[in-house]
Amino acid sequence: MKIKKPKYFSSFSLLEKELAKQNYSKIFVLVDSNTRQHCFSKLLSFSKNIIIIEIKPTDEHKNLISCEKIWQTLSAENADRKSVLINIGGGMICDLGGFAASVYKRGIDFMHVPTTSMAMCDAAIGGKTAVNFANAKNIIGTFHQPKQIFICNDFLKSLPKRELISGLAEVMKHALLNNDKKILNQLNEIAVDDLDWKKLVKSSVEYKMKVIEKDFFEQNIRKLLNVGHTFGHAVEAALMHDEKKKLLHGEAVAMGFRFEILLAIIVFDLKLDEANFVLELLDKYFPIIKFSSTEKKKIIALLKADKKNQNGKINFSLFKKIGNAKIDCFVSEEKIEQLLKAF
Amino acid sequence: MKIKKPKYFSSFSLLEKELAKQNYSKIFVLVDSNTRQHCFSKLLSFSKNIIIIEIKPTDEHKNLISCEKIWQTLSAENADRKSVLINIGGGMICDLGGFAASVYKRGIDFMHVPTTSMAMCDAAIGGKTAVNFANAKNIIGTFHQPKQIFICNDFLKSLPKRELISGLAEVMKHALLNNDKKILNQLNEIAVDDLDWKKLVKSSVEYKMKVIEKDFFEQNIRKLLNVGHTFGHAVEAALMHDEKKKLLHGEAVAMGFRFEILLAIIVFDLKLDEANFVLELLDKYFPIIKFSSTEKKKIIALLKADKKNQNGKINFSLFKKIGNAKIDCFVSEEKIEQLLKAF
Repeated sequence: MKIKKPKYFSSFSLLEKELAKQNYSKIFVLVDSNTRQHCFSKLLSFSKNIIIIEIKPTDEHKNLISCEKIWQTLSAENADRKSVLINIGGGMICDLGGFAASVYKRGIDFMHVPTTSMAMCDAAIGGKTAVNFANAKNIIGTFHQPKQIFICNDFLKSLPKRELISGLAEVMKHALLNNDKKILNQLNEIAVDDLDWKKLVKSSVEYKMKVIEKDFFEQNIRKLLNVGHTFGHAVEAALMHDEKKKLLHGEAVAMGFRFEILLAIIVFDLKLDEANFVLELLDKYFPIIKFSSTEKKKIIALLKADKKNQNGKINFSLFKKIGNAKIDCFVSEEKIEQLLKAF
Repeated sequence: MKIKKPKYFSSFSLLEKELAKQNYSKIFVLVDSNTRQHCFSKLLSFSKNIIIIEIKPTDEHKNLISCEKIWQTLSAENADRKSVLINIGGGMICDLGGFAASVYKRGIDFMHVPTTSMAMCDAAIGGKTAVNFANAKNIIGTFHQPKQIFICNDFLKSLPKRELISGLAEVMKHALLNNDKKILNQLNEIAVDDLDWKKLVKSSVEYKMKVIEKDFFEQNIRKLLNVGHTFGHAVEAALMHDEKKKLLHGEAVAMGFRFEILLAIIVFDLKLDEANFVLELLDKYFPIIKFSSTEKKKIIALLKADKKNQNGKINFSLFKKIGNAKIDCFVSEEKIEQLLKAF
């Protein structure tokens, strides 16, 4: 499947010119209160003659209630099939807006303007749309390509550091899968504040695009991209409603890597020096989270509801070694429970 | 696009054997209270080891609330990507179940067992899924092929006559578009109780399949199938909450034909003898509905929200003559209002 490449912009002014060019019957823009204030407001000349839909920020609002708000506005404003929805925000806005647009009137065009490192390196790329439902992450969604993706590194300048770092979990994932020595060395050796984000984003996007083109509907090799994510998603959902422990997606994925690296040692004899390399990389950027026994129970329940499972077994993608992961590794609930006890 | 042909069954026992063959991790069956009692109960040997999801009947429950009920059950029962949802019912069940399955975990397999003439001749065929939202018909949905369609004419035997007749609106539509003299003659000349439903269903399915294969995503000729439906959908939605005047889909479409035939006379000089042929055919099977001025206003508002509109103009597919219709006929709101006043 041919996938359209993102367009890169070195400044807000170039991006706003490009956005203003869109020739649709009506232009809708989805933002959350944060991205409205910090991102959308910077696209001055684009801000005219469009209809803004603002929803509440954070993953806990990536749900059907927010979808209904979007559909209500589209409907009230008579959005037609020649209308477009431009999603300006992080992964949550891209996932949510993508889903809402992909089923409104059986699909209108949508575009992504990712404003976080996480969205640029991962969420905005690949045409997976979704909302959370019944406590499970991304359980309702579609495979639907955005019409265009606009990446502008300028947005990263004002991003809080914690959020900026969060995106590194996906950069790391892509570099580990691709055994991209240059990126791994940069992540390993360079101080956090000196990272070359332009390069990190580009390498991530390019690797992910390559995988998506071969397997858009995730029948085989796209499943590689789930490394760290089976456990990571469960952690993210388990802590979602705890104001103090709530994690960013990348932080949850980092915990997912820690757990799944241990699992890979057991299942595949992943070499200890490689495992340690990954764990030390994670330590450089991400906090280690301790789970209470109640949280562990929640995580187990969520793993059991993971959308990739089959016949009651939990489905992981695991590293055999760096640059070589295996999809469809089905592990029994008991094994996971044992390992989690010790974790 | 290659579309899988429906399988036909001459009796319940053959159908239940076929259904029992399905080799999925879990089988879910969607019914409404009517089809559970009158249709599902006839598939005795199939009724074991499956999980039933029952929702309330009629189009007014083809909404997100019913979807959430389906997703909740799928989720609570740990439906995975190797699970299947079998929709046993009329067009409403097929549309709703198709949509719910097509976005659950980004799409699990679903199958249709249409139990009404309307569903066999139209709704179950073609992979359009949808629910109603904010008073508009089918506004949220997907294009997604069912894995299989099972047609068993036996279901029609116990169908209330009003419902049986309703399906003729779609049979008529397909025969008029295809200028299928045999079917048109049967509809015109044979007494209602003597109609050969096996032939009517088969001809309808075959014509629709032919169109769908050429244009699954409704970019061009599939729009032909919207004849009668722009006005018909608006009528259906306008009367949906009026217990006394509420129409079946086919009855609403029949009113749609009446209006759009008049429109075609104005727009395309559709010949009067052809227009009369269609109107008389409609008179044979369908009641004529008078609209109050409040209802007319509602219809106009709904037409303005039709998902096919562009740039504020209402989009019809209209007959130039029998066997030759034209898509994308954009008509202004004013013209529609004038005609509706006189209607």
